[in-house]
Amino acid sequence: MRKLVALPVLSADALSSVAYGPEAMLTVLVLAGSAGLGWSLPISGAIVFLMLAVGTSYRQTIRAYPQGGGSYIVATANLGRVPGLVAAAGLITDYVLTVAVSISSGLAAVTSAIPSLHSAVVPIGVAIIVILLIANVRGVRQAGALFAAPTYAFILAIALLVIVGLVDATGRGFHALPRPALHATQAVTLLLVLRAFASGSTAMTGVEAISNAVTVFKPPEWRNARTTLSWMIGLLVTMFVGIIVLVELGGIVPEHSQTVLSQLAHQDFGSGPLYVYVQAATALVLLLAADTAYNDFPRVMFLLARDRFAPRPFLKMGDRLAFNNGILALSIVAGLVFFAFNGNTSSLIPLYAVGVFLAFTLSQAGMVVHWWRLRSGGWRRSILFNGIGCVLTAIVFVIAAITKFTAGAWVSLLIVVVFTAVALLTRRHFDRVAAATGLSPEASASEENEETPSQFSNLAIVPVPYLNRVTVRALAYAVSLGQPVLALHVSPTEEEAKRFREYWADWGNHVPLEVVKSPYRAVIPPTVAYIEALHAQRPELTLTVIVPELALRHWWQRLLYEDFATRLRRSLAELPMVLVTSVPLHV
Amino acid sequence: MRKLVALPVLSADALSSVAYGPEAMLTVLVLAGSAGLGWSLPISGAIVFLMLAVGTSYRQTIRAYPQGGGSYIVATANLGRVPGLVAAAGLITDYVLTVAVSISSGLAAVTSAIPSLHSAVVPIGVAIIVILLIANVRGVRQAGALFAAPTYAFILAIALLVIVGLVDATGRGFHALPRPALHATQAVTLLLVLRAFASGSTAMTGVEAISNAVTVFKPPEWRNARTTLSWMIGLLVTMFVGIIVLVELGGIVPEHSQTVLSQLAHQDFGSGPLYVYVQAATALVLLLAADTAYNDFPRVMFLLARDRFAPRPFLKMGDRLAFNNGILALSIVAGLVFFAFNGNTSSLIPLYAVGVFLAFTLSQAGMVVHWWRLRSGGWRRSILFNGIGCVLTAIVFVIAAITKFTAGAWVSLLIVVVFTAVALLTRRHFDRVAAATGLSPEASASEENEETPSQFSNLAIVPVPYLNRVTVRALAYAVSLGQPVLALHVSPTEEEAKRFREYWADWGNHVPLEVVKSPYRAVIPPTVAYIEALHAQRPELTLTVIVPELALRHWWQRLLYEDFATRLRRSLAELPMVLVTSVPLHV
Repeated sequence: MRKLVALPVLSADALSSVAYGPEAMLTVLVLAGSAGLGWSLPISGAIVFLMLAVGTSYRQTIRAYPQGGGSYIVATANLGRVPGLVAAAGLITDYVLTVAVSISSGLAAVTSAIPSLHSAVVPIGVAIIVILLIANVRGVRQAGALFAAPTYAFILAIALLVIVGLVDATGRGFHALPRPALHATQAVTLLLVLRAFASGSTAMTGVEAISNAVTVFKPPEWRNARTTLSWMIGLLVTMFVGIIVLVELGGIVPEHSQTVLSQLAHQDFGSGPLYVYVQAATALVLLLAADTAYNDFPRVMFLLARDRFAPRPFLKMGDRLAFNNGILALSIVAGLVFFAFNGNTSSLIPLYAVGVFLAFTLSQAGMVVHWWRLRSGGWRRSILFNGIGCVLTAIVFVIAAITKFTAGAWVSLLIVVVFTAVALLTRRHFDRVAAATGLSPEASASEENEETPSQFSNLAIVPVPYLNRVTVRALAYAVSLGQPVLALHVSPTEEEAKRFREYWADWGNHVPLEVVKSPYRAVIPPTVAYIEALHAQRPELTLTVIVPELALRHWWQRLLYEDFATRLRRSLAELPMVLVTSVPLHV
Repeated sequence: MRKLVALPVLSADALSSVAYGPEAMLTVLVLAGSAGLGWSLPISGAIVFLMLAVGTSYRQTIRAYPQGGGSYIVATANLGRVPGLVAAAGLITDYVLTVAVSISSGLAAVTSAIPSLHSAVVPIGVAIIVILLIANVRGVRQAGALFAAPTYAFILAIALLVIVGLVDATGRGFHALPRPALHATQAVTLLLVLRAFASGSTAMTGVEAISNAVTVFKPPEWRNARTTLSWMIGLLVTMFVGIIVLVELGGIVPEHSQTVLSQLAHQDFGSGPLYVYVQAATALVLLLAADTAYNDFPRVMFLLARDRFAPRPFLKMGDRLAFNNGILALSIVAGLVFFAFNGNTSSLIPLYAVGVFLAFTLSQAGMVVHWWRLRSGGWRRSILFNGIGCVLTAIVFVIAAITKFTAGAWVSLLIVVVFTAVALLTRRHFDRVAAATGLSPEASASEENEETPSQFSNLAIVPVPYLNRVTVRALAYAVSLGQPVLALHVSPTEEEAKRFREYWADWGNHVPLEVVKSPYRAVIPPTVAYIEALHAQRPELTLTVIVPELALRHWWQRLLYEDFATRLRRSLAELPMVLVTSVPLHV
């Protein structure tokens, strides 16, 4: 990918974060009224410093992991299994919340312009998640131009907003407009400031995307990726600072019914077409950001499944080469989270920062270890940059976890713990199975840990409810295998049993017949009981139950029959020496 | 069963109908105000005549069908397949509505006493259906005393109500109390009177129960059953007339918030313990009536399935010898109907009469034909009684279908038509399959419509993703069958394929190995494609795919794996010469 195509695709997630990050910070500060909002500039300065530090840190990662260095890979390689899984768990919560927050924030941009849609936010959001699910399963590729457009449109929108806003401010000599009267419900405390900082730092979610995807760039990949990362950080800082400055100059106060960006756009452009353009571009770039999680989440699940930390179905690609199970899992979890939090951005924000900064921290800690182990040219500088990034993001993680704990961070922390535990248990299961089923190194068919054909003494059992072409076919197949065959008939009464034996004799008595009594006409239980008894009596025999079956073309035809083979298979699953196969007759 | 035990068990459905039948009639008449309610006595007279005629008619049925003469059996035997199925469809709607109406009416008895429960009627009703489902699947037998109590309690309640009411009325010289002022919204028209008649005739739903269950009586069964039927009709007429007379004397007008029975009980007993007793006995007998449908519906479905008009699963008995699938089907349909009509008795009544009287009519028409064919002693008298019953119930059916068509009868008629059509299509499917799979009368293994063992030329194919104890076991089993075996490995790259061939050689090359390329790591599609290609090339071969499988103890372990055998079986279901079996290894 060329840099100018990769930039919008890979930075949609990061750049769109300025739509909710500044607002999340202001929403906390306004609780302390004007005095609280006065802290907006210093906190923003800290966030900008954080952006630059993390950007510099990820430049190191790109150089070290030109094949793509996601947090899970870097943390696992340098810190070990558990930190790697914790990083993966952080990423998982990050991606789920990227979907939920991006959609809720995108819908806030829409309802700011069309307030009547406010009550329909939850169903619309769920519908969008369903559409993303279908689109991604169908394999919508990130086709360059189409996916580049929203990001560039959004950059242009913020640029216009900031320029027009600054020109207006110049006209009045940079005097800030007066804020509406505010009623402070809290004092300015350290806790409040830290909470505002943690909320505002969600403005940098998504900056890791480029370092995950170095391979999509044109060669030299790592150099192009680094350049693009620098551009992205530059844009992110510029847009973030621009918005914060406009908020200060415009005397903007966060409102419930309208986003901060919408207020700024109204101030600059009234309610005309440019206002509509800003809102539409914001909604579209956030939709694109949500879509990027549909690429990232299934890939992490794939990596975990490949390393046997997650169920195998996450390895599977669908017909369109998409990881359908990962896409489905993300949709369900993100849909539930969106629904549970009523599609409300400010309720979701406390959950968001924890996962993101946990993954950041572990990734950069991994990089510090990486450079220390390598100690090649310039390692001291690299350790310095990654070390600063690691310490700063660790501080943000701790601040977010503590100051937002009761507001929702506990949910993310719980998910991280449970996810890590489940991953470890999954791995333990697979390891145990591998140990139990592995062959010894110099395996040969004669060794004791393998079964040989001569150990199998076969008997085929064919359940025969009637004598017709279906059952005769199964009998013929059973006989053709050249092993002993026994036909099994279940009969409710002695007379019916006698009658069936006569049919059997008329037919030619080709196969030995056993008749089992079942006064209540049940078929499965007496069949199972007979096979279990036979197994108990002759445990050395391998019993192959060959079930005659009618092959049905339509699903509704299958409703007309009992699925004898499946039910028998389930009932006999516990017996190691019993196999069930079905012989279909197509009519 | 003794008569005094059989009476309450088999007549709960019929007798409990007086809890909603009179009220349904009055609810229609009150639309025409006092002038409308004036028609109450003549219409009730017609209904009493109908009860006696139908009772007499069913006495004939009991004599003719001592093994039990349900509408489906009688109509099929005497009128043929389609009338029998239409009668069965009528019964099915009858039973579904017995559940829905009995529960809604029973809850109306409860909410009359406890109005605050009114808003919770739908969830409570659904919960009761779930409880009935569980109780019947668990096999609650109609244990004599327990099931007799509610019916006798209800008979006693109505007797007390009527006697106390009549004594009160005697005290004031049989002057009717004044009715509240009524606002007539309709004129008294023929249509209104007929609609009231059709609604009121739901007071006799359930009278066929005894003729269905003649075999449960002590010998001489038919004579005891007839006697019990006469008692039941006597009680039904007495209770119905008693309630109608009390309504007249008490100046009762149907209300939305309180049932007619509740108003009568308040008039007689105030709000004391006797009032509570009347409401509780009413609710309990209606619950018992709903429960009787849980015996009748699965039995009709069993008979239909036995005659190949319904899916086979309805033949199946559960562990407790209950027809679980019929019980489940009734619960789902009755639950949906109850939910769709908001648990409102008066909305459900229009659907009810149609099915009931359709089954009545066809059953009695069948009896007329029965006697005509037989022409044994007293046949003229029997034809007369059944003929009168048939004509009268046919008239009620037509009246109900026409006057209630738009109010809901169309739903029942549509269900009858669709049910009959589906039953006929089901039978056609089973007949076609029987024709296609039947053996010719003098069948022998050499005839052309049978397959012989020599026609099977077997090849076993074992998919081998890895070389471990699981796959080795499947290979050993395949070899032990003594037929040619081919191992099939899917590999993403040429190198991996080469590596696997080396393992295979190290292991000893016991079985020929085929390696298939699959660059995207998909396994099922290339396996299916290989087998399809092999089948196309060698159509005479029977291919047995032997899938190595890990036997897992817990359901959550199964979530960790792809169900390879099931997916392969589904993908290969179209090929007649391909069988799939799985060889489990228990670890």
